[in-house]
Amino acid sequence: MSSSNSSKVFEGIVDRFKGITVDSQKEQCEDQEFTEKLKDSLKAWTENGNRGIWFKVHLSQSDWVPVLAKNGFKFHHAQEDYVMMVYWLPKSESNNIPHYAHTMVGVGAVVINDENQVLVVKERYYPHSLPHYKLPGGYAEPGENIVDTAIREVYEETNIKTKFESVLTLRHGHAGMFRCSDIYITVHLKALTTDIKKCDRELMECKWMDVPEYLEHPHIHELNKFFVKKYLEYEERGIKLNCFHGIHQILKKPYTVYSITNRELEFTENHVDISKH
Amino acid sequence: MSSSNSSKVFEGIVDRFKGITVDSQKEQCEDQEFTEKLKDSLKAWTENGNRGIWFKVHLSQSDWVPVLAKNGFKFHHAQEDYVMMVYWLPKSESNNIPHYAHTMVGVGAVVINDENQVLVVKERYYPHSLPHYKLPGGYAEPGENIVDTAIREVYEETNIKTKFESVLTLRHGHAGMFRCSDIYITVHLKALTTDIKKCDRELMECKWMDVPEYLEHPHIHELNKFFVKKYLEYEERGIKLNCFHGIHQILKKPYTVYSITNRELEFTENHVDISKH
Repeated sequence: MSSSNSSKVFEGIVDRFKGITVDSQKEQCEDQEFTEKLKDSLKAWTENGNRGIWFKVHLSQSDWVPVLAKNGFKFHHAQEDYVMMVYWLPKSESNNIPHYAHTMVGVGAVVINDENQVLVVKERYYPHSLPHYKLPGGYAEPGENIVDTAIREVYEETNIKTKFESVLTLRHGHAGMFRCSDIYITVHLKALTTDIKKCDRELMECKWMDVPEYLEHPHIHELNKFFVKKYLEYEERGIKLNCFHGIHQILKKPYTVYSITNRELEFTENHVDISKH
Repeated sequence: MSSSNSSKVFEGIVDRFKGITVDSQKEQCEDQEFTEKLKDSLKAWTENGNRGIWFKVHLSQSDWVPVLAKNGFKFHHAQEDYVMMVYWLPKSESNNIPHYAHTMVGVGAVVINDENQVLVVKERYYPHSLPHYKLPGGYAEPGENIVDTAIREVYEETNIKTKFESVLTLRHGHAGMFRCSDIYITVHLKALTTDIKKCDRELMECKWMDVPEYLEHPHIHELNKFFVKKYLEYEERGIKLNCFHGIHQILKKPYTVYSITNRELEFTENHVDISKH
């Protein structure tokens, strides 16, 4: 094969499912040549029995997007600087490419101080009519563990430093922000400081409230009361939904596991490698 | 203002943060007119103090994508048939648009039958060298509750019908498929049938294994053994991580909440509206 012929087909990277991924930054191609090179590539890949064909198109090569769309490609997911488009090649086999992530993950923190008070906040941009107090919290950043999210959000919103005690509950809902599903995990944090300095950008108010007052307060949602009742119940029964760190046996990647433990079964600094033999 | 003037600016839909969303299907525009109309719109929105500018570009209007990219728009997220691009207009305010979902949610099921055996599977396309048995399971579909995912995946893979008993653990890791984070929730399901009919497309093998054999088996990961040990521990202590359904007090949307309960505290059919007064 001559070199001019070989340059007519994108190389891409082959995966274990016989898929191919072309990165627009790694295989740059003039716009006027792109249409023909794409057609030749699709023909070659069809003959070769390839399956999912992926094009990672960076912002600076986004002229490729309409050409790919006209050739049957669909969108799969996007990050700030690229969109991933995909085409399922086999005619005889149904498309079994997994969905991209469709779940937002956030936390709410039941922060308790030494006076048996709970930290409550009022949002600045609360869209509903009834004023209400809620738990501090927010969405997990990419790559962030939920306990770290809880501690970070409480600190950013209120300047209170905290320490993890237990997961309390997990709430799962659908059709939320960006039409995604939503997992909201509440955790019990112990307050290590007491002086509140609220984040004015996000909050209208922030204060310590006695737990009995919280449980009777007319402007707190029943579900938020339920979270604090669970904190009281776990305390009374001496149980925790604890957090352990491990390393995946095969992939060698770190992970965190949450499960019920007795308080007396706690491990040093909540850290134990349960994947080790 | 004349009607020819007014058609030079996209209408869009205004949100509570002074953002604007233009849908390419609802405000179609010839490609040759798009560049100028976009520039006029951005000028008008800047003067008006608008903030996040969103363009929902459908596959059939994807000629807009390179023009938006050249005008400073970035990708935010995508679904099969559209890509959402966004531009943060205020020069004096940092961009505070939330990240799109970056967490895949999956389940693994500890399915136990009346003989104290656990259901194990061997994947057909397992990429690592060591053969191993794992728990049946898979990713949640959009809009699907995790208990339903577990019951569906077990049935699809093995033809075994099951009933929810308890959540056992939650594992959180990062940099997984599509570079997303990954939440893997294990649940204890009680088997309602016994005859296995395996899904040949996905599995190489599928069988019932005595729990003591499972806990000693050399080709089962330590973390999978940990999940089954947790099942045994919760059984012995008579505790559950139970599942309740509720309706959000303000948004009126259904949700599911998971929290620790005593077995004797179970509600009829695991259904109770904890949001009601």
